[in-house]
Amino acid sequence: MKLVRYGNPGKEKPGLIDDNGQLRDLSGVLKDIGPEQLGDAALAKLRKLKTDKLPLVRGKPRYGSPVANVGKFIAIGLNYADHAAESGAPIPKEPIVFMKATSCIQGPNDPVMLPKGSVKTDWEVELGVVIGTRARYVSQKDALNFVAGYCTINDVSEREYQTERGGTWDKGKGCDTFGPIGPWLVTRDEVPNPQKLAMWLDLNGKRVQTGSTKTMIFSVAKLVSYVSQFMTLMPGDVITTGTPPGVGLGMKPPLYLKKGDVMTLGIDGLGDQRQEVVPFKL
Amino acid sequence: MKLVRYGNPGKEKPGLIDDNGQLRDLSGVLKDIGPEQLGDAALAKLRKLKTDKLPLVRGKPRYGSPVANVGKFIAIGLNYADHAAESGAPIPKEPIVFMKATSCIQGPNDPVMLPKGSVKTDWEVELGVVIGTRARYVSQKDALNFVAGYCTINDVSEREYQTERGGTWDKGKGCDTFGPIGPWLVTRDEVPNPQKLAMWLDLNGKRVQTGSTKTMIFSVAKLVSYVSQFMTLMPGDVITTGTPPGVGLGMKPPLYLKKGDVMTLGIDGLGDQRQEVVPFKL
Repeated sequence: MKLVRYGNPGKEKPGLIDDNGQLRDLSGVLKDIGPEQLGDAALAKLRKLKTDKLPLVRGKPRYGSPVANVGKFIAIGLNYADHAAESGAPIPKEPIVFMKATSCIQGPNDPVMLPKGSVKTDWEVELGVVIGTRARYVSQKDALNFVAGYCTINDVSEREYQTERGGTWDKGKGCDTFGPIGPWLVTRDEVPNPQKLAMWLDLNGKRVQTGSTKTMIFSVAKLVSYVSQFMTLMPGDVITTGTPPGVGLGMKPPLYLKKGDVMTLGIDGLGDQRQEVVPFKL
Repeated sequence: MKLVRYGNPGKEKPGLIDDNGQLRDLSGVLKDIGPEQLGDAALAKLRKLKTDKLPLVRGKPRYGSPVANVGKFIAIGLNYADHAAESGAPIPKEPIVFMKATSCIQGPNDPVMLPKGSVKTDWEVELGVVIGTRARYVSQKDALNFVAGYCTINDVSEREYQTERGGTWDKGKGCDTFGPIGPWLVTRDEVPNPQKLAMWLDLNGKRVQTGSTKTMIFSVAKLVSYVSQFMTLMPGDVITTGTPPGVGLGMKPPLYLKKGDVMTLGIDGLGDQRQEVVPFKL
């Protein structure tokens, strides 16, 4: 299934994209798509619905993040060897874990705002993993059973805040609008191999990132298992799994986002995003 | 006011401690104590209640975290010069910001569990700041107006995970049970000067940490203002503001927690905590 949340910010309704690519309303069936709706039993029930009986949604509504009430927005750094190289960083021996502020989560096509005075805001197309079932110390072998599904994420990053202001990366990763998620949460039964997904990001129509999850250093299963050794993963938690090469930081000279730029990005089967870059505004 | 949440884990009810130190039930007045109940207007309404008319709670119920549905659990590192010194770290030029997983939050007297195989679990008594009003780019002068109140926090930390496993500190800060908060959320009107609070922590009855918020490098007002430049602070977010010297890491040789140890800790006017250290258990 392709689950979505659509409508105005803070007022999103649950929906799904049917086999014909049409948006159907789920608000008669579900309150929302969040921690309580992502377990295997809840998703199995949903899968039994006759989608052609669900109300069609007219027009072109905005999409919000396909997951509501994300408890933790966990991120993995330098998980593609060639991206580590372009960042001037060694290949990590263990996954690098940091956290994005949940307040940065937004819809896939909402504008990305440059923080006040920012001159080093950058892009990162990433595979997002949405947890469906509470996971503590799960093995790599079992790990994918705890996943509800997958989504496209832009792990927007302010490089000066991330690396030149002291402390951890978290400072440059959680600014408002830095977490576009969606458009779809594609349930895991429709993603038989999360390590075989092509991904791309265009800046102003020009391809800058091209990659595939097949070149991840640590696989999705490894990451879910690994993170679950350090913190309990809860339903609705999101893990964004690192970016392939082609970010602005890695260019010579580095290239960063400015007002009016447009990022378009996507992952095979998980849907595309489009964000216009807008200036700081309170 | 001293606000509390009492009862079994996940079933806590809101309450308050009256002027005679008695626990009164607030569940007839409030659904919970969380993001929606922490704004100035909501607290002013609560302040008008005749507390002697509220039902007395009999017995000695467990206390949970006095804040429900914490969206972000933000932490400040090395915010006391003498703690930076004992950690072998330079005094930071800007606040060090990291994040604790919200899934680690628990009541003030719940046991602290050693993670699987952990040999470097450590204690940190800290002043907790609970945000009451959404704060973005707030000035240091205005910052305390966005605070709902203050609480005692033990920023339990696994030092090997924090500093020897690659990546950011987040890995060693968010293990289950690593975030005891409470017992009370003391509203800011009752804490006229958050920079004048004595704090202490005993290990097995022996004083190991003695400090005062007066020796913070960055004041609470500075921290709220600073963090709000990097992420929007939402009602119910918690900032834990760093620890004074006396942690296990700083001892020669270092001393870490083991099964059966008991931590007792407190901050003047904000209440005390007591945690027994228990072995890993799934």
